[in-house]
Amino acid sequence: MKSLLIRNVVLNGKPADILVRGNRISRIGRNLEDKAGRTIDGRGMTALPPLINGHTHAAMTLLRGYADDMGLMEWLQTKIWPFEGRLTKDDVLVGSRLACLEMIKSGATFFNDMYWHWHATAEAVEEMGLRALLSPVFIDGGDEARGETNRRMVEEIHGGLDGYSGRVRFALGPHAIYTVSADNLRFMKEFARAQNVPIHIHLSETADEVQTCLKSRKLRPVEYLDSIGFLGPEVFAAHCVHLAEKEIDLLAANRVKAIHIPVSNLKLAVGGIMPMAALTKAGVSVLLGTDGCSSNNCLDMFQTLKFAALLAKHQSGNPTSMPAHEAWAMATTDAARAFGLDLGLEEGRLADLILVDRERPEFVPGYNLYSDLVYSANGYCVDTVLCDGRVLMSRRKVSGEKEIIDDARRVARRLCQAG
Amino acid sequence: MKSLLIRNVVLNGKPADILVRGNRISRIGRNLEDKAGRTIDGRGMTALPPLINGHTHAAMTLLRGYADDMGLMEWLQTKIWPFEGRLTKDDVLVGSRLACLEMIKSGATFFNDMYWHWHATAEAVEEMGLRALLSPVFIDGGDEARGETNRRMVEEIHGGLDGYSGRVRFALGPHAIYTVSADNLRFMKEFARAQNVPIHIHLSETADEVQTCLKSRKLRPVEYLDSIGFLGPEVFAAHCVHLAEKEIDLLAANRVKAIHIPVSNLKLAVGGIMPMAALTKAGVSVLLGTDGCSSNNCLDMFQTLKFAALLAKHQSGNPTSMPAHEAWAMATTDAARAFGLDLGLEEGRLADLILVDRERPEFVPGYNLYSDLVYSANGYCVDTVLCDGRVLMSRRKVSGEKEIIDDARRVARRLCQAG
Repeated sequence: MKSLLIRNVVLNGKPADILVRGNRISRIGRNLEDKAGRTIDGRGMTALPPLINGHTHAAMTLLRGYADDMGLMEWLQTKIWPFEGRLTKDDVLVGSRLACLEMIKSGATFFNDMYWHWHATAEAVEEMGLRALLSPVFIDGGDEARGETNRRMVEEIHGGLDGYSGRVRFALGPHAIYTVSADNLRFMKEFARAQNVPIHIHLSETADEVQTCLKSRKLRPVEYLDSIGFLGPEVFAAHCVHLAEKEIDLLAANRVKAIHIPVSNLKLAVGGIMPMAALTKAGVSVLLGTDGCSSNNCLDMFQTLKFAALLAKHQSGNPTSMPAHEAWAMATTDAARAFGLDLGLEEGRLADLILVDRERPEFVPGYNLYSDLVYSANGYCVDTVLCDGRVLMSRRKVSGEKEIIDDARRVARRLCQAG
Repeated sequence: MKSLLIRNVVLNGKPADILVRGNRISRIGRNLEDKAGRTIDGRGMTALPPLINGHTHAAMTLLRGYADDMGLMEWLQTKIWPFEGRLTKDDVLVGSRLACLEMIKSGATFFNDMYWHWHATAEAVEEMGLRALLSPVFIDGGDEARGETNRRMVEEIHGGLDGYSGRVRFALGPHAIYTVSADNLRFMKEFARAQNVPIHIHLSETADEVQTCLKSRKLRPVEYLDSIGFLGPEVFAAHCVHLAEKEIDLLAANRVKAIHIPVSNLKLAVGGIMPMAALTKAGVSVLLGTDGCSSNNCLDMFQTLKFAALLAKHQSGNPTSMPAHEAWAMATTDAARAFGLDLGLEEGRLADLILVDRERPEFVPGYNLYSDLVYSANGYCVDTVLCDGRVLMSRRKVSGEKEIIDDARRVARRLCQAG
């Protein structure tokens, strides 16, 4: 079994060595010895759990900056959807690699994704060494034939998972209540229960979604999902911006996980901010995500952390809301737990960790590590990234970086010319 | 006269060489020759104007992370003010150097400052090679003797400016309407007019400031300043969060510059966001600033740019508000003009510029430079910084960086032990 010894890092404020065997943390202590394996000099570095990106569309890196500062429907109809319609499986592979590169460079080792061409994103995750929960987009638009194709896709992907490592996991990705029929939502709920897979859905992102639902069903979106028996602890609901009190209670009672995506919500001007304080008070587990690159436009979870913590203070009118250590836990250890990942800097757990370089102005003087991480740093403070026992980045270098960037530029040029 | 040739950069989308002589841009063209001076290889780099930090308290880097997530008055009274009371001139020099380092590393070459120990910040600016408009804090707390001491300080500093380079400029720094008497505000207005110096003041940051003013003077803060003849084009008003319509008209009519400080406003939960759309519609010149490190907690203007652009969309409910190119101009060329700086990437102008490295994931594919700068990048994309014709950073290295960081940590330890 391969081993790796990280020497002289700071862990929980004290010097420590971390010994990794295979894909797990084997020992944490002082002056550990390991003659067989690789050694990393961690002097000046602080070891921390990795960031967990709760919601993204990885391959949309190919759309970064392609269309911004536009009204939502014009943006989707004239820019995003036509561009996406031209994406091949190979393009999604290239775009997903770029996303993995960017997430590694900002300290995330896991992301929760929803996109087209599932196998391409899975291939990128395998190659790049990250972990991900991947859901193929399921949209039927009320069309039964399209629904049938989607249902077959779900069954086929799930039936063919044997070739993948444990780092890639499969989830169902009903896009939203306004793009998937009640029948297909029920199909996915049953499938999820029977096969024990998570569900990833966009929920209550815009006021328009709520109004349309109220008009057609006399129910708000969360009430509607409850009425068809869709809610449950396996559901990860992205956005949750426009929620009535009774909806918050329903999410809590059904142990749905809510994913807060503040940067995207502001950029697209969806007309609100997730009522995070009310959700956490009700006992809902809240995670953080970046969204895809066409609506953020970067995948740096450090930035999402700062937006989330500051918006919580602004929203409550109380600067003590979402203190730095809570924000940090929300984006790391708490999120890992919500996704069922056995992560954390303890013996026996999976060897996912980051080494942060605090020898830079934004960590000086250095009174409070969590405050510096959340309010002052950005993803560039991450020097080294380990995932599943493997070093994915060392001294900010990731293998194959130049080729990934060149490939993405080449694909983007072709896609633009075709448009 | 010293010269510097920057070869093969991208400027306005095309390859160019930039020849600097002394402190000005001498020529811009292709295949320029210069045998005498230094040459910088700019391949892969994009030349851009530098960022302008419209409001900060540089030496407060020493308080970064010292006290966060606290209520405003408890924070000021139990943490910030006692700590500041212990700061010596030497401490301010050390803290200001750290701030200059951080601003250089995120591409700002000018900052508008208000703090104690004016000469120490001026010394740091001179040493580090930046530009700044520096105002000593003027607080009288209604105490005539203290006002008299402050007035003498203003006259002494202004009388002793001969030793400073053109990079350091002096401004008056009446802290706010609730800490400076009407008499002293009038003194400063007269001094500013007679001596042709700018005024830098905090204005309408909190709802409390407005309520207190209304209660004691039956006027809102801007109306009060108008009633004593204080407003004018030399006034830089920081925050401007809580403004009534008639106050916006007064600011416009008097050509006051308003400084938007979104990160600090959210973090301290001041109860609002500057009504930027209304201000710019009324013709008020709006600049952007970071605030000091105790309320942000970093000095990266790229981050402030993204917060400002996204909050503008959120506030208006319109994703087309504050498009990327406008945001970029607001933080660079427009701000330079407001501070009377002859900056811009044109022949004859002052040689302040940054070279941005786009060979990183957050600039890929690279459809739209301004979108990538505002929505995707952070200050770490800045590779090289020129100010006044001098190279302050090259390949992200700044001279003396380690000593500056070590000094700040040493001073911070002493200040904490003394507390």
